[in-house]
Formats: sequence, structure tokens, C-alpha cells
Amino acid sequence: MRLTWTQSVERWGVFEVVCSGAQEGNPFVERELIGEFTSDCERKTVYGFYDGGGMYRVRFMPSFQGEYSFFLSGSALDEEVRGSFQVLPPSEGNHGPVYVSNGCHFAYADGTPHFSFGTTCYVWALQSDEQIEATFDTLKRAPFNKVRFCVLPKHYDFNLREPRSYPFEGTPMDSSVISSDNFFSYTGKSNGSQWDYERPNPEHFRHLERCISRLMEMGIEADIILFHPYDRWGFSTMMPEQDAFYLNYAVRRFAAYRNVWWSMANEYDLLTEKTTDRWETLADLLCASDPYGHLRSIHNCMAFYDHTRPWITHASIQRQDFYRTTEYTDEWRERYRKPIVNDEIGYEGNIPHGWGNLSPQEIVRRFWEATLRGGYAGHGETYLSDDGILWWSHGGTLKGESPARIAFLRKLVEKLPCGLRRLPGAFDELCAGLDSPITMLRGVQPLRLYYYGFARPSYRDFHFAEDERWHVQVIDTWNMTVRDAGVHSGAFRIELPGREYMAIRLDRIE
Amino acid sequence: MRLTWTQSVERWGVFEVVCSGAQEGNPFVERELIGEFTSDCERKTVYGFYDGGGMYRVRFMPSFQGEYSFFLSGSALDEEVRGSFQVLPPSEGNHGPVYVSNGCHFAYADGTPHFSFGTTCYVWALQSDEQIEATFDTLKRAPFNKVRFCVLPKHYDFNLREPRSYPFEGTPMDSSVISSDNFFSYTGKSNGSQWDYERPNPEHFRHLERCISRLMEMGIEADIILFHPYDRWGFSTMMPEQDAFYLNYAVRRFAAYRNVWWSMANEYDLLTEKTTDRWETLADLLCASDPYGHLRSIHNCMAFYDHTRPWITHASIQRQDFYRTTEYTDEWRERYRKPIVNDEIGYEGNIPHGWGNLSPQEIVRRFWEATLRGGYAGHGETYLSDDGILWWSHGGTLKGESPARIAFLRKLVEKLPCGLRRLPGAFDELCAGLDSPITMLRGVQPLRLYYYGFARPSYRDFHFAEDERWHVQVIDTWNMTVRDAGVHSGAFRIELPGREYMAIRLDRIE
Repeated sequence: MRLTWTQSVERWGVFEVVCSGAQEGNPFVERELIGEFTSDCERKTVYGFYDGGGMYRVRFMPSFQGEYSFFLSGSALDEEVRGSFQVLPPSEGNHGPVYVSNGCHFAYADGTPHFSFGTTCYVWALQSDEQIEATFDTLKRAPFNKVRFCVLPKHYDFNLREPRSYPFEGTPMDSSVISSDNFFSYTGKSNGSQWDYERPNPEHFRHLERCISRLMEMGIEADIILFHPYDRWGFSTMMPEQDAFYLNYAVRRFAAYRNVWWSMANEYDLLTEKTTDRWETLADLLCASDPYGHLRSIHNCMAFYDHTRPWITHASIQRQDFYRTTEYTDEWRERYRKPIVNDEIGYEGNIPHGWGNLSPQEIVRRFWEATLRGGYAGHGETYLSDDGILWWSHGGTLKGESPARIAFLRKLVEKLPCGLRRLPGAFDELCAGLDSPITMLRGVQPLRLYYYGFARPSYRDFHFAEDERWHVQVIDTWNMTVRDAGVHSGAFRIELPGREYMAIRLDRIE
Repeated sequence: MRLTWTQSVERWGVFEVVCSGAQEGNPFVERELIGEFTSDCERKTVYGFYDGGGMYRVRFMPSFQGEYSFFLSGSALDEEVRGSFQVLPPSEGNHGPVYVSNGCHFAYADGTPHFSFGTTCYVWALQSDEQIEATFDTLKRAPFNKVRFCVLPKHYDFNLREPRSYPFEGTPMDSSVISSDNFFSYTGKSNGSQWDYERPNPEHFRHLERCISRLMEMGIEADIILFHPYDRWGFSTMMPEQDAFYLNYAVRRFAAYRNVWWSMANEYDLLTEKTTDRWETLADLLCASDPYGHLRSIHNCMAFYDHTRPWITHASIQRQDFYRTTEYTDEWRERYRKPIVNDEIGYEGNIPHGWGNLSPQEIVRRFWEATLRGGYAGHGETYLSDDGILWWSHGGTLKGESPARIAFLRKLVEKLPCGLRRLPGAFDELCAGLDSPITMLRGVQPLRLYYYGFARPSYRDFHFAEDERWHVQVIDTWNMTVRDAGVHSGAFRIELPGREYMAIRLDRIE
């Protein structure tokens, strides 16, 4: 039995112990590796996993600095093991995992606010190495700090190729019979694919870990979709115990990466065999097996899951209305009292489907609506392409005009001390302020952000108290300009260009 | 006693008998003139009115051709009078008054379908002669076949001048104290204006009749607003018996014009003193005093009136939602089972108010939504102007880009044998067909009209039976082009430019 581990790790980094061990039988299910990690500040029990080739691993994300000791036991080991390591200060840009903060918002474990600006690339990580590198290159320049993607391969329009690897040992069906015309008939049916659901394919997971880890280094959250319905291999219709085994294995592998968020499912309601009872059982398992309490959500196609369920940390929402989308954000906040992440607001693009052919202007408008109503929105892009590479599914290169405007919004928001909430306003304006009474105690001056969307006012009148001084800025959210409009008190008028997508920011000054 | 009348009138024209009579006392309330009009096909009792200067008039719109006789009586006359006249065929373009037809649509009395494309110019008729002529000039070239306007003067932003005349004898308040800042404090308060509500100002009404008559000659319906809340003279807060007298007088004067529609109120719910009981009493009076059963509606600001009330012929609606407006048309059809006229969908313009600063693209989109959902929409325009003339209130000249596109839509719709209704379709398309099963009996071929609004599909796939042949046209609703896309059967794909505001029309052919 060989054991290796590093002597130190940064706070919220991945500490790992690797052990050689038995290969006979099925070590994935027949052997167990249990780690107990202890410091002055915490004590956690963490389960390891079999990584193939006679190697077992147990991973741990320390939440505190200082001296840690560990104790390993379980049938994977010839004998129990003790060791220790040092947890160093976090490196620059490492703020820890993201948790819910201040009711309907997020913050990193070190208290830094996290303003979620996600994008969706369902199976970018299952593409070729070259394609994956192109995606990383794009993400370096893009305004997104979260990527939603799947562990399991995807079968759908524009997604008919085989993935780079499969999550289990086995043999896929003959894919030559597949076309976009018959994909619905394949959804959820294995049709000849044969898998050993008790033997995960370690390389599939190791590859995903490399992707998660690189996202982590880039400061990007990995919103990992555990289940989804767009399938021709049979992974969407596993038996309950197979689902549980898969989920548990994925959590043991991924949970120590601080940037992990769990999306229990994409479009859970299309997984028609999975009843609410089955989802709730999987949720219990997820909560029990993740030692760090990473964020958890479950995403709808049509009907929302009951986002009031205690295991759900934030509502991950696909819009239900073709016209109003993020305009419901403040209503959903009231309903769920959790962060509202509009992960599917429609995508910028030109494919035939109505969810994937919005203008960049409309996408950006929906981002502003979500933000000023105290929630968050997610991006996606679906431009037809000769090479069949669409960002929404494959990653690659962004072609659209919305990312630059989302970057502009993110920059504005990230300078705020906390997230926004909608304030009462006229019927024809969206008015937001800082979403924290605590900021008042800290001496943070009030802020008002007004947004006019598709309306085109030539001016707007304001009425404040005579002894309140407000610094006014006129923001063109599409052309990405900010014009200083001076300091005003009492009743005053702010001129606007009579164009769409304008905002006015007022900062109270002493 | 002198009496004059013409020997003939066209069908649905205005036949009038003028009598000289007593001037002493208050003839408006103390004298009565009653006409009975009889032909082989109809017999109607019609009430006349005092027109000042010792003149009484009774007007009658004959609904049939041929010989008519009349019998006049009442205290306005020294003696009863009998006479006769000839009703000639209608002149070109005279199709009679508009009534509800085919459930949720309209038709003229001669059976010609009427597709409503209205505009709003609240007090265009109370402007200067020069200004009124400018409005007529514009209407000659504009695509509108209905104008909504008020009998009573209007007080509101951009509407602070005195009207050309007042509806009653009396003295208006000193208007020098009025500004846009204090107009709300004047709403509904007479503040010094003094009126004799039992003495209408005949010239005010004669002038409006000239306007109604000229609209009639132009084939434009006059959607006459009887009450409205935007007032500084006291006309919005008359006593119930004053309201009734005014309404009765207006109906006696205007009802014989075939192009009259009655809008009981604009934004009835802002007339806070008028309870539902008072409205219902006025509605009873309106029904009783209009011998022709002209169309009747009552328009909301916020809450809808109960449009199921039997006196309401069609729902005249102001949108209640800042985002979804005419998108509710088909739901309202189901609710009310009457024609849905979205008389206020927001206006093209750039004023500060959100109801008056929409882009022309958004206005046109709302028209298409209303039309394909089986209803109708109304236009308005509110561009700021150095001369303070805004079409929505004063008429004048149109500056916007939506009227040309509304004309394009109207031309398309008017070639249809009947109105449209929404058909089942995918979530990302609006699909409409002809709204009449009778057309099938008449051998009219089915039609499908698909509209994609702000979505930008690059193509759409269709699936029809192999033995159905469809002629396809691709319509760019904004650029006003129609491209022939050939004849197709079974499953086929139609290419689109990946732009907003596209429609596809399919006509079934033998």
C-alpha cells in the first residue's frame, strides 16, 4: 500500500490523499475509503472513491488555515492511516466557495459578494481538446463567472455526435441511425447501448475534474448538471439505485472543488420517470454526501420544482412565458425568499427555436430586468454555424453582441457593496436600490438605479427632498456609455436621448 | 312655424327636419320634439333637440331604401307635422354603420367586413380650424378607419390650453394659474368655472357634427368619448342628472351619423365619483336614446369594466401590463366573447411617460399580436414637438414610422374574407387562421398566418399532410415586403432572414 499526499494546500484548495489498493472484484462498490479531517476549527468526515487502476483517492477542501490532521480508514486500506498537513492562506482570487448571502444574493466564503453572471455550454467539456481550449480562451475574455454544463452527454438538435467519453464502462448504441428528425423517439431510451452502471469510467470524471479545476483557477463557478433528459444512451432512465450510485460517485469526486454548484437537473420535468419522491431522495443523498454544502438547485422546462424545498439553495429558472421572463424576478423573490438565478432567459442567436433566436438587445434587456429586480440572469448563444459549433452546447467562440454589454453591467454591479432589490417606482420605470439595510449602518450612501428598457423617454423628472443631494449619471446600457449629469436636489429633470435601453443612476452624497 | 327638410337622402345618410319654434324659457329642457319615421321595413321614434336661436332639429338615419313618411309632435311645435321623403341607394363607400359580426369581429350594415385600425386624437376637434384641416389632411393619407376623440375638453400634460369652445354656456376659470405641475390638483374640480348645465352650447356640438360628418365622408368611424377624467372645468364631476342630460343631448345630436361609436368613457375608473350604478344608469339611457344601436364600449385606465355587461358591444381596452399588452387578446376574447379592441397599446413617441414613448417597431409588433389573436389594435403618437402639437391629443401631422407598417398590415387583412383567430401553435410562434367556419362552406380555402415577433428564426419547419398544397409567402412586417416562397406539401422548410418581425403566410390551394 502506497500513500501520497501533499504537505500543504491553500485554504479552500483541494487536498488529496492517493492510496494504492485492491483491484479485484468491483472496487467502485465493494471498497470504501473514509477520511476524517480535523483542525482547531473544523472536523469533517469525507468519503473517497475508486479511481481505477488500483488507485483510491480521498479529497478534502479545508475551510480554515492552519494545521490539519487526518485519519483514513475503510476496506480500501490494508491499515488505518494518519497524517497531517498545513493549510496556507488562499492565493489571490481564491475567495472560497459561493454561498447564499443576504437573503437573495450570494457571497464567497470570505465575505466577498458574488454577483452571478453565468453562461450555458451544456457539453463543452465533452468536446475535443482543441475545442475545449477554444472555450477556455473565450472564457478568459468573456464576462461570465459561472458555466452551466453536464456530466452526462447530450443528445438534441445540433448535438448528434458522440461525446469524447462515456461516464460508465460499456458500449454505446450504433449512432449511424440518428438524425435530428428522430431524436425525440430516442430520448431516454437506451436502444441497444449497454452500460455497467456499477463501473464508472474514471477517465470521464478525471477529464471533467481538469475542466472544473481550470475554471476554478479562472475564478469561474462550475454549475454542474447531474441529470438531464436529452439522451440517447440510457443515462436519463437509470434505475433509482443507479442514479444514487452515480450521484454519490460524482459528489465524492467533485465536491472538494470550491467552485462547484450542484444543478440536480436541467429540465427535471422532462425526466418523466423521475417522480418528486425520487428527486427528493436524490436531494437527501446530495445533501448527505457533500461535506461543504455547495449551492444546490433544480432547473425546469415548464413547471417549476417547488423551490421552497429546504435542500434548494437558490431558484434556477427557465422562463415560462414567451414575453415576460426576468420581469418576474421580484415576484419569485417574494415567493421563494432565495436567490433567483434566471439560468435560461432565451439565448442570443438565430436558430429556428424561439428560445434560441433572440436579439442581443433583448438578452441585455432581460439581464437588466433581472439585476434591478434583485436577481441574476444567465447568458447563452445559439448562432447557426457552418461547423455546427454552437456556444450554448459546445462552447467555442462567441459571435454575439450581448457579452460586451453583460460585461458592462457586471462591471457596474461589481462595484456595488451588495446586490440590488427593486424599490417602488412608477409603472413605467424599474427602480432599484441596494438590497441591504446593513449598508445604512455601515454608512453606505443610498443608491437608486432606474431602468427604462424598451421605453424611450426624452427626459424624466425626479422629486427628492431639498436637503438630499444626488449625483446623477445617465447610462446607455447598449452603447455602454456613462454621462455625468451633475448633482441635484429636490425636484429636477434629467434629459435623455429618447432611445431604448437607458438607465439613470443616482448616488446620494453628503 | 317654419319647417324644412330635404326630399331625399341616401340610405344610412342623415335626414333632418328643421323647425323654428319658441325661444322663451329654457327650450333645451322645457320643449320636446318627437319624430316617428316609417317605411315598409322599419318604424323608429327619434327625439329631436334644441339647437339655439329658436331652431329645433330632429335627425334620422334610415336603414332601408324607399319611401319614408314621418310624423312630428311635441311641445316644440305649434302643431303636429307629417311629411315624406325618399331614401336612395347608398353612395360609394357608404356601407352603413358598423356592428358586431361573427362573434368577435365587425361588419358594416351592408355585410362588408370592417377591420378596425383606429387612432387616438383626444381633442383634435377642439383645436383651431387650421389645425383641424391639418388633421384631415393627415387622415386622408393615414391607414386609420377610426378616430377616438372627446366631446369634452381635455386637461392634461401637453394639454393646458383652452378649447375652441365649451359644451355649456358659462364662464371658465382663470387658466393663468395652470401649469403641468399642478394639473392633478385641478382634475375634476371646477375651481371657479361656472356653467349652466341645462344650457348646452349648440355651436360646440354643431362644430363636432361637422367633424363627424367629414370623417364619415372619409370612411372613418368616430369613436366618441362621452366622459373622461382629464378636466379642470368641472365637466367630469357633474351631478347624475347633469350627466344624463348631457349624454341625452349628445346622443340626440350625433346618433344619426352612421360612423358614430359610443365610448362611454375614457379611463372610466379615474372618474372616481361615478359608481358602477351611475355608469349602468348612463348605459341604460344610452341604449334607450340611441335608435340605431351604435357600438358601445367603456375604456379603462387600470381595472377593466365588466365587459360582459350586455350593453357593452365590444371591449375597448387599455393594456394593464407594461410588457404584455395585445398578447392577451385571445384570452380576453375567451373571457368576453366580444370583439377586443386594444384602443391603448401605448403610443409611438418619446415623451417621458412610459405609455407614450414606444418605438415604432414595438407598436407594429403589438398590432400584429392583436390581429393574429383575433382582435384589433389602436394607434397613437406622442413625439415631443416645439409647437406642442402631439397627434395623440391634437391631431396635426404624423411623424412616426408605424403608420406605414399599419397600412401594410391593414392592406393584408382587408383582403381576407373575414377576421382572424388564433390557432394552436408552437410556444414560439403565433399562428392564426380565418375566424369563421362559414368560410369553409363558401369554399374559402384555409389560410395560416404565422408571426414570430421579436424572435429571429433562420428557418421554420412545417408539417402538413402530403395531399395538402400550400402556397407560401414570407412577409417582412417591418420592411413591408412579401416574398413568394413557392408551393409546398407535407414536411417542408421555409428559409427566413434571421431578423425580427417576420411572418409566414400559407394559403391552401387546390
